[in-house]
Amino acid sequence: MSTEAKHASTMNHGKVSLAEAFAQFDEQWSPKLVGELNGQHVKLAKLEGEFVRHRHDDADELFLVLNGHLDIELDEETVALDPGEFVVVPRGVEHRPVADGETEVLLFEPAGTENTGNVDSERTADVERL
Amino acid sequence: MSTEAKHASTMNHGKVSLAEAFAQFDEQWSPKLVGELNGQHVKLAKLEGEFVRHRHDDADELFLVLNGHLDIELDEETVALDPGEFVVVPRGVEHRPVADGETEVLLFEPAGTENTGNVDSERTADVERL
Repeated sequence: MSTEAKHASTMNHGKVSLAEAFAQFDEQWSPKLVGELNGQHVKLAKLEGEFVRHRHDDADELFLVLNGHLDIELDEETVALDPGEFVVVPRGVEHRPVADGETEVLLFEPAGTENTGNVDSERTADVERL
Repeated sequence: MSTEAKHASTMNHGKVSLAEAFAQFDEQWSPKLVGELNGQHVKLAKLEGEFVRHRHDDADELFLVLNGHLDIELDEETVALDPGEFVVVPRGVEHRPVADGETEVLLFEPAGTENTGNVDSERTADVERL
């Protein structure tokens, strides 16, 4: 495909196919930016295993599971998410995502939100536009 | 189920199942509020047929199709969305959603966004919390 055709196809009126977007990357715990609106970002991520426990002081964060299974461990409970289920973790709430096998999620959060929130970790990742 | 049990089940750590939420209503073109974060609303809607052409002057609007097929007619092009595909219609852009058969969509937009935007129509609907 020519660069021009590829560009046109990628743009395609700005439409995003979740399946096609997930097929474009393999990295885990490295959210990819796929949409932007009203100062918020739509990101896709592949998760597997345990993440670092963290919080976002100024950002509520939505996790929508598309494939796999995600536990979000809170202080006194765990939210268990199967495909087609979402939860909003409010700002300030400590949480630890734990994915059972490779799990695909859609995230919705304010632009500039870091994946590890208040924690500086080797897991802290720059967000790349897909 | 007792009221108390039902409440506990509905709350279930704030988790939302898209399938269970869609099973709770039949009305078409009447978005239901299922999540709130950072001043934004997550809504679910069942659409069928043609909607009124409108725009939102202060709101970008995301349409994610979950079931069915949605055309979003813009000035000079139509964005055709199948399940697992989304588009962001930027603020100020005139658009007309046309759903081919009953179509289930998830919407992200700022709190307070009216479904018919700048147009006052019999289709203008209050947003009910599910």
